[in-house]
Amino acid sequence: MDDVAVNEWHSYAKSWAKHAGSMMMEARQKASFDREYKTGHELVTSTDIAIDEYLCENIRQTFPDHLILSEESSPDLAFAQGASVPVWVIDPIDGTINFAQGLLHVAVSIAVYYQGERWVGVVHAPFLQETYTAVRGQGAWLNSEPIQVSQRNDLRNAIVATGFPYDKATLPILIKQLQAVLSRCQDVRRNGSAALDLCAVARGQMDAYYESVKPWDMAAGALIAEEAGAIVGHFHEQGSKWPNKINGEFLLAATPDLYQSLLELLQVADK
Amino acid sequence: MDDVAVNEWHSYAKSWAKHAGSMMMEARQKASFDREYKTGHELVTSTDIAIDEYLCENIRQTFPDHLILSEESSPDLAFAQGASVPVWVIDPIDGTINFAQGLLHVAVSIAVYYQGERWVGVVHAPFLQETYTAVRGQGAWLNSEPIQVSQRNDLRNAIVATGFPYDKATLPILIKQLQAVLSRCQDVRRNGSAALDLCAVARGQMDAYYESVKPWDMAAGALIAEEAGAIVGHFHEQGSKWPNKINGEFLLAATPDLYQSLLELLQVADK
Repeated sequence: MDDVAVNEWHSYAKSWAKHAGSMMMEARQKASFDREYKTGHELVTSTDIAIDEYLCENIRQTFPDHLILSEESSPDLAFAQGASVPVWVIDPIDGTINFAQGLLHVAVSIAVYYQGERWVGVVHAPFLQETYTAVRGQGAWLNSEPIQVSQRNDLRNAIVATGFPYDKATLPILIKQLQAVLSRCQDVRRNGSAALDLCAVARGQMDAYYESVKPWDMAAGALIAEEAGAIVGHFHEQGSKWPNKINGEFLLAATPDLYQSLLELLQVADK
Repeated sequence: MDDVAVNEWHSYAKSWAKHAGSMMMEARQKASFDREYKTGHELVTSTDIAIDEYLCENIRQTFPDHLILSEESSPDLAFAQGASVPVWVIDPIDGTINFAQGLLHVAVSIAVYYQGERWVGVVHAPFLQETYTAVRGQGAWLNSEPIQVSQRNDLRNAIVATGFPYDKATLPILIKQLQAVLSRCQDVRRNGSAALDLCAVARGQMDAYYESVKPWDMAAGALIAEEAGAIVGHFHEQGSKWPNKINGEFLLAATPDLYQSLLELLQVADK
């Protein structure tokens, strides 16, 4: 892969993410956003839409031949066409409920996926003043400082991040997984942003993360976690319409020493 | 009750809490703390101990006739003696695991309990730069600005904070409660600090909080939530060795419109 192109994607992604962050801060400061509920009781604000438009417009202008996979405006477009060009996988606000509640765990997530691989990941959290980035094969950074996963190797002392979906249909099985994890690990955390949970694993604040999420929630964070030394995979290999590297279903990210134990724990819990 | 005395307790509590916060920040910056596990796999660091000593020494010097109820040094002292003097209820670090992991939700909690009532509550979170305080009958503040609970009145859109204990014996019943809450509410959050969860309810970032915790985890936060307009009570009235206002067992704090629905939801889940 052409390093110059990848570094250019990285540079644009960082710059657009920073601007998106400032749009969030301004909207919160002025309390100037409307709320609506999509299907399944999923919240969306006018700021999600505004940032989505900002990002899509810039990507289209700068890279007119690239595709966009976005939560808010084009959730199925790219892969219906069988992408042979780079695809920008974006979530304008990961943690929309947190954004609306005035909580801190809110991020814009931008990834570039190409030829079966994640190449660039940027997760910017304006209220935490944290910008996580990664480039495939080059490493992961928090505010330009290199980051790496924790050295945790025993489940008993592990802190595991997870989340729960808007759709309550899968709740019974999620509860079984949670009970298994709580009974074997030190504790869980539920911050409300998948992208930032993956970044927390990347910087060693969390020792693992599991959840079933969408491509735009995880594409950037998964690369950041992987480039920081985490193993990122799936605890079930069920059929998905998404390519493997942006498939968020049954996602598991963990330190190398914890990955296999957690994989088995989650697999057994589902039975 | 003598306002002058209460305001003096408030003033000292704030000042000591700020200093305790600076001790946490310094210890994290230098990574200069040791870790140990108490019974039930509960983590304690040398910074917990150092802050406990600092607080106890100052309370004893300033108020030699008062009693201290502290997680780290005197967990049962005060009420064994049948307290007829003010009791300082302190947690040097609420969120010890978060402190050790480098997470932000970490606080010192200081409350003054006297004649069956909570009079003063201070929760200071140095890494979030948040200082929550309350005085009985006078209101609640975040960094000197008055705060109040959210206007949330429907469970379906409510964000509920909760936690899980070190001791895994009660896990099956906790899981049933969590499933009930998740199935009826928008979502849960698990930040790892009971004191800050109560403060999040107080400022309207969370709509409710439930958990079974110790007096030092909740004494300050419960007053802050109550003074900000929350209803604070217990979803079971089982016998406890602690006086009602510092009894953290089956604790529930919620906006006035949500309290009764959540109370019933949690009570039914236990059956």
